[in-house]
Amino acid sequence: MKRLLAHADILAWENGGFVCLKNGYLGINGDRIDYLGTQAPQAPYAETRDMTGKLLLPGLINGHTHTGMSLLRGLGSDLPLDKWLFDTVFPVEDRLTDEDLRIGMELSMLEMLASGITSFTDMYMGASYCAPVILASGMKANLCRPMQSFDPDEDPMTCRRMREMLALYDEWNGAGDGRIVTDFSIHAEYTCTERMVRAAAEEAQKRGAGMHVHLSETEAEQQKCIERYGMTPAEWFDSLGAFGGRAYAAHGVWLTESDRALLKQRGVSVVHCPESNLKLGSGVANVPALVAEGLNVAIGTDGAASNNNLNMLEEMHLVGLLHKGVQRDPTLISPAQVLSMATVNGARLQGRTDTGALAVGRKADIVAIDTDRPHLTPNIDPMANLIYAAQGADVVLTMVDGRILYENGAYLTLDRERILFDARKAARRLL
Amino acid sequence: MKRLLAHADILAWENGGFVCLKNGYLGINGDRIDYLGTQAPQAPYAETRDMTGKLLLPGLINGHTHTGMSLLRGLGSDLPLDKWLFDTVFPVEDRLTDEDLRIGMELSMLEMLASGITSFTDMYMGASYCAPVILASGMKANLCRPMQSFDPDEDPMTCRRMREMLALYDEWNGAGDGRIVTDFSIHAEYTCTERMVRAAAEEAQKRGAGMHVHLSETEAEQQKCIERYGMTPAEWFDSLGAFGGRAYAAHGVWLTESDRALLKQRGVSVVHCPESNLKLGSGVANVPALVAEGLNVAIGTDGAASNNNLNMLEEMHLVGLLHKGVQRDPTLISPAQVLSMATVNGARLQGRTDTGALAVGRKADIVAIDTDRPHLTPNIDPMANLIYAAQGADVVLTMVDGRILYENGAYLTLDRERILFDARKAARRLL
Repeated sequence: MKRLLAHADILAWENGGFVCLKNGYLGINGDRIDYLGTQAPQAPYAETRDMTGKLLLPGLINGHTHTGMSLLRGLGSDLPLDKWLFDTVFPVEDRLTDEDLRIGMELSMLEMLASGITSFTDMYMGASYCAPVILASGMKANLCRPMQSFDPDEDPMTCRRMREMLALYDEWNGAGDGRIVTDFSIHAEYTCTERMVRAAAEEAQKRGAGMHVHLSETEAEQQKCIERYGMTPAEWFDSLGAFGGRAYAAHGVWLTESDRALLKQRGVSVVHCPESNLKLGSGVANVPALVAEGLNVAIGTDGAASNNNLNMLEEMHLVGLLHKGVQRDPTLISPAQVLSMATVNGARLQGRTDTGALAVGRKADIVAIDTDRPHLTPNIDPMANLIYAAQGADVVLTMVDGRILYENGAYLTLDRERILFDARKAARRLL
Repeated sequence: MKRLLAHADILAWENGGFVCLKNGYLGINGDRIDYLGTQAPQAPYAETRDMTGKLLLPGLINGHTHTGMSLLRGLGSDLPLDKWLFDTVFPVEDRLTDEDLRIGMELSMLEMLASGITSFTDMYMGASYCAPVILASGMKANLCRPMQSFDPDEDPMTCRRMREMLALYDEWNGAGDGRIVTDFSIHAEYTCTERMVRAAAEEAQKRGAGMHVHLSETEAEQQKCIERYGMTPAEWFDSLGAFGGRAYAAHGVWLTESDRALLKQRGVSVVHCPESNLKLGSGVANVPALVAEGLNVAIGTDGAASNNNLNMLEEMHLVGLLHKGVQRDPTLISPAQVLSMATVNGARLQGRTDTGALAVGRKADIVAIDTDRPHLTPNIDPMANLIYAAQGADVVLTMVDGRILYENGAYLTLDRERILFDARKAARRLL
């Protein structure tokens, strides 16, 4: 089907940057953008939709989350990190069934679509089990089966986690016309043996798959790794070959200057998760340095157990404010830089070259914001309004591959009431 | 009229703290709360409203804003503070007419009601001109006419600003059955002479009126004051008698330990404005210390020119996260502490003893949050969901003195379309 979105302000991508097409037109042919401009296209479109008062932006890409944890939202708030993890989160996670993981995934997708997320990078159990519901939802996701291993004698190639990871890859990589991508993952330095990292890196690179890790989230992690190995976590992962292919690291709060240089050299993306890092008391990543030094920085919500939502507009707003305040320089991190992190940079992290930007030939992964609202009036600078004044609920349309998945509060592929019912039931049993 | 809100979760105030009444009842008689409990009241109510799936909380109090600046939203983003103020904001402010100020006020009220604000503390020009539209809106406000004076020879009692302030007090203090309170104000140490501060303090205290100041917002302000007077701004204001009555100070980013002790001794409230302080690169106020030392801390959005919205839920969320991250302690600043700042503490700052809490006998200033939403599911900890997961748009009802002013996107006292039209027209002329 050919569909034309008319009279919208459009944050299009031209020559490596955003331009705002005022009162513009965006044409869609099937799953791709086939027209962009401020003049009406000459070719006919089967449907023309009047988007007056709307701002179109690329679908947002959540660079790091744990969707299954949405069932644990609000559990053990304000505890010290150790007590929160060991006394509240881990015991509940132990009881999660595959069915719970599917419900958590569905709940998370409801939430993500409503704030304009079209693609997400998940790190949690049950990815194979959840893949069919992602396909049915119409969303895009990079999935993995995170490796953990505490026993140096464990054979990486016969352990359960590796078998699950390889099965995930074989069964789901590239499914849904490429909507699902499967990456490999090491949970973190402090939860894995060197032997396991080497094996996972080798298997990932053999297949051209990505590598998803937690990296330098807390000061304790950074220091204990140095004590243990005489290396920072980044150096340790690198020494074991983990950064030999497409790789991305969540958090990066405690990266040193030489860590940053190493990640830059290896092309490792860093996923900035500011709300989670604040809430857990981990600190504030030096994003201005990462950006200035040319690393690929994306944005992630992390899981709802430590955030407590999956709202990328909120996260983008915080990225736009936080570093100015902490480094006391109001010129740091522009709205355009924030939007890049949440779109093109996220696409690069996910190994997707056909999304993350509104440009002819790219997939029609599109979000519309309703700017006809008091808190977005006047609209003299749409990009500033988007980053500094908008909220998640201003999203009125979320489209993936040309297909509308969410519009004005209604879900077109997910059964909102059934999912909320199931989520409440699961939470009552678990918590 | 007697109205009963039934089957809501209610964040009631008992013995100086919040308790959550699950599936509770809140009765309203005229402008006051006359029943609270988990059992249905025996007395009859003319109207019973089913609030299943809603969370009731006290109306939010915006402790510091500049409503007229909403017309400047998005102007000069990401400039250094001096360039932003002197090259973009001040030239536009010079051209603001009384009519513009009224439109900015109306635009701000639309936005504030939609995120649950029932009362606000404003510091801007045109307060007398705007008072009638506040009365018509049904909201509550503490208004002032901020003093500035750079000429030590200027006679404080005959200058235009003092005359306007005294007229504001005479005409509007206590209007609307107490909904409007007029306070005195010194804009800041760096914009006022000692003679003017003394006079304003004396006039305020003679009338039992409050004193609203900007205090220790930037490091430069703090240091230059010390160079100029050998005192911090807090000491300087205090030495001139400004803190002799009810007084409140916005920002407080650079307060020293002895400043905090002084403000505590004088009973001066501090209004924490985290988004504005981050966006302008001013820094992060030491709120955990202020709270631990027993000062009255409220929350303000500041103006939309430096925020860029007036969304108290967003501000509360940030207060809940920011200090944990900056001071690297996830146990700092609980959700209940945040909600206190945004409600009872704000009421205290405004000199209002009859609002800021849901308790029998208080004014029915009430907000309802719709918790039947994916990002608030499961709802195992309503207070944690409110502070860490909710967004402004989750507000579905805002009531002041028992009167519904906003419900499900509709305004019952303000003409949304006319105000947005006027605001866009004014912005086109001004910017």
